Amino acid sequence: MTYNLVLLRHGESEWNQKNLFTGWVDVPLTEKGRAEGVRAGELLRENDLLPDVLHTSLLKRAILTAQIAMETADRPWVDTVRSWRLNERHYGALQGKDKKAIRDEYGEEQFMEWRRSFDTPPPPLDDSSEWSQVGDARYGNLGAALPRTECLADVIVRLLPYWYDSIVPDLQLRRTVLIAAHGNSLRALIKHLEGISDDAITGLNVPTGIPLHYELDEQTLVPVGGRGRYLDPAAAETAIGAVANQGR
Amino acid sequence: MTYNLVLLRHGESEWNQKNLFTGWVDVPLTEKGRAEGVRAGELLRENDLLPDVLHTSLLKRAILTAQIAMETADRPWVDTVRSWRLNERHYGALQGKDKKAIRDEYGEEQFMEWRRSFDTPPPPLDDSSEWSQVGDARYGNLGAALPRTECLADVIVRLLPYWYDSIVPDLQLRRTVLIAAHGNSLRALIKHLEGISDDAITGLNVPTGIPLHYELDEQTLVPVGGRGRYLDPAAAETAIGAVANQGR
Repeated sequence: MTYNLVLLRHGESEWNQKNLFTGWVDVPLTEKGRAEGVRAGELLRENDLLPDVLHTSLLKRAILTAQIAMETADRPWVDTVRSWRLNERHYGALQGKDKKAIRDEYGEEQFMEWRRSFDTPPPPLDDSSEWSQVGDARYGNLGAALPRTECLADVIVRLLPYWYDSIVPDLQLRRTVLIAAHGNSLRALIKHLEGISDDAITGLNVPTGIPLHYELDEQTLVPVGGRGRYLDPAAAETAIGAVANQGR
Repeated sequence: MTYNLVLLRHGESEWNQKNLFTGWVDVPLTEKGRAEGVRAGELLRENDLLPDVLHTSLLKRAILTAQIAMETADRPWVDTVRSWRLNERHYGALQGKDKKAIRDEYGEEQFMEWRRSFDTPPPPLDDSSEWSQVGDARYGNLGAALPRTECLADVIVRLLPYWYDSIVPDLQLRRTVLIAAHGNSLRALIKHLEGISDDAITGLNVPTGIPLHYELDEQTLVPVGGRGRYLDPAAAETAIGAVANQGR
């Protein structure tokens, strides 16, 4: 027997469109992003993968993409749980900065290191920055532990407690679980699920708005066939190419 | 010290508009209903009553009204909990029937008894009806206890366990609680909060989409001043008159 897990990266946000580093800044969806939510809901329904429980980050672009998808799939009533542990990687001092400008100023190597390095975080975001999350009520429980920057390794460390303690127990109840999250929190989870190396994860991109379905072995939680399956494989391939070219 | 509780009846649904008995039938919002959700969110924000936690029924008209309100108030990330115990009163065999036709067929007295009697439920809905909830996954936990009809007294009995066990504990954490629910589940709660008699509750109508704010004494959970306050009192008064005239 297997468990059904579906991962969904939020649709286009206003800052995806403007090509800015977003991280924990709580940016709304664009109209295109909302349409991606509708398409995601249609794909869930067409593939008979109707979630029984929804886990989201605390950021509206993931929350709203999932709400729109669940409304489209006619399942807005499922249990919903949210956690900062599913948030996007905190992009530190890069939050609010233009990706192309950063690339031009610091060069391709530094740009790619900040963007894709496994264990080198960008410089920390100053607490006085307009893009800081210090004082944001939704993170009040974190106190001094609120991130000021994160690398992908940091995201894995803060994500896995939520995976083991909140998501796996839902899978064990044989619930189809939908996780609506972000490019890097999903990369962190995919790395864990598929056993991808620290080096190889650099090359992995997650397209927006296309559900990624895993069947997980109920004993080992290892994906059947070793990997997930996008519910619209052709669109996923096109979109992955587009993500890889951001900042160009 | 007091606790802050806000009640919100869902915006107009397609069957409100068509003047049909709805009950547990999961009918979508109209465009007007969505606009009421936006207005509710604006009123929460203008009155500095930003919810920390949201409780909804399992019916999309309440879920979506609340989602739209929370998005408008820029708080889509708050904890969200859902329960069938907040559902509308089950209208039994009247579900799906035209209010005016029922009134014409059975007369004013029977119509008002089914609609507003405290302890006389309508005839039960047949399990084979297209408007039955038998077999609906979201109510699978209820087994044979799934309602086939309810009077307001029944609603109070099934609502209060949720009030005491799920909502009051959130109030005790000093969280501003928003409950998004239905005309009759909110009448049941208001009856409990305000200590309204079985007779007097007949005359109480709750307008759609206008938040109703209670300050509750933290020892007794009794409303300060004995009752709640609509955040838009003039609109509430107009709307209450419209609700009272349904089926005329």
